[in-house]
Amino acid sequence: MSLYRQTLVQQRKMLQNLDLWLDKAVAHCVRFDRDGRKFDANSLLTARLAADQFPLTRQIQIACDNAKMTAARLTGKTAPAHPDTETTLGELKTRIAAVVEHLGTYTEADYNGAADRLLELPVAPGMAIRGDDYATEMALPNFYFHASTAYNILRHNGVELGKKDFLGPMAFSPKG
Amino acid sequence: MSLYRQTLVQQRKMLQNLDLWLDKAVAHCVRFDRDGRKFDANSLLTARLAADQFPLTRQIQIACDNAKMTAARLTGKTAPAHPDTETTLGELKTRIAAVVEHLGTYTEADYNGAADRLLELPVAPGMAIRGDDYATEMALPNFYFHASTAYNILRHNGVELGKKDFLGPMAFSPKG
Repeated sequence: MSLYRQTLVQQRKMLQNLDLWLDKAVAHCVRFDRDGRKFDANSLLTARLAADQFPLTRQIQIACDNAKMTAARLTGKTAPAHPDTETTLGELKTRIAAVVEHLGTYTEADYNGAADRLLELPVAPGMAIRGDDYATEMALPNFYFHASTAYNILRHNGVELGKKDFLGPMAFSPKG
Repeated sequence: MSLYRQTLVQQRKMLQNLDLWLDKAVAHCVRFDRDGRKFDANSLLTARLAADQFPLTRQIQIACDNAKMTAARLTGKTAPAHPDTETTLGELKTRIAAVVEHLGTYTEADYNGAADRLLELPVAPGMAIRGDDYATEMALPNFYFHASTAYNILRHNGVELGKKDFLGPMAFSPKG
């Protein structure tokens, strides 16, 4: 399987899953309103699991940036800028949609040679890492960390989500 | 890069990282004791981020099982059983050590043909999924979900951990 499918296609699907988690967060807010409970949707966006950990909004922004930078680094292209100005669930959904659309412009051919490409990253000045090592050891673990943390912040705040929401559709086909 | 390195080698390293997170949890308990604060280490093991989500002990057991089952399924081997009886941080470290040691018995040659192997899983009766799709869409996302959730439960309870602890060592080498 190519790095295109292992990273871009999978990360794009996970961002689409994340978008559905935010739909469930919106439904959660609507239910609170309907029940007459005091509830500010902004409290979800600023929620965090530890005082020195990023809140939901930043977790989602980082997941989006990770996906677009993984693609850009592995292919030598330039990722579009997104200014981190989101203050509502709707704006976060728009951010996700923009990155999902951008990722859709890549093709498998863009990833020719990606595994052997030597990447220099801000995190390790004067050092380099192969594209396949970067994908396996850094890009994907980081991506899943921020996606999982966004998911857990929502779960911690009562949003109804389950493992199927996390994983999304998978390539099962009828046996035989 | 082979599925051996993408799954087994990376998951084995992540379990070793997880073991270090538990060392930091032990240090956290020692600090609480030293400060004279009432603290039961068992409260960490049963901590969870949502009432209907698994606590720390189960997150770690699942991460261990995921790693050994990923290897067993991709290679057609049988994974050893572990009875989920851990009740202390020390016993969880022993569980992790047992799985890390077991994973060390695999070789890259065991993964010949793993990408094309058709897997039937309890989660989808009558269906099958290719080994590479299983690794990318199910095994790794699930593994990182449980590792991230274990990490977040510890962070939520005040254990001092950072992103370097999550990622562990990476294959950077001097540039040029």
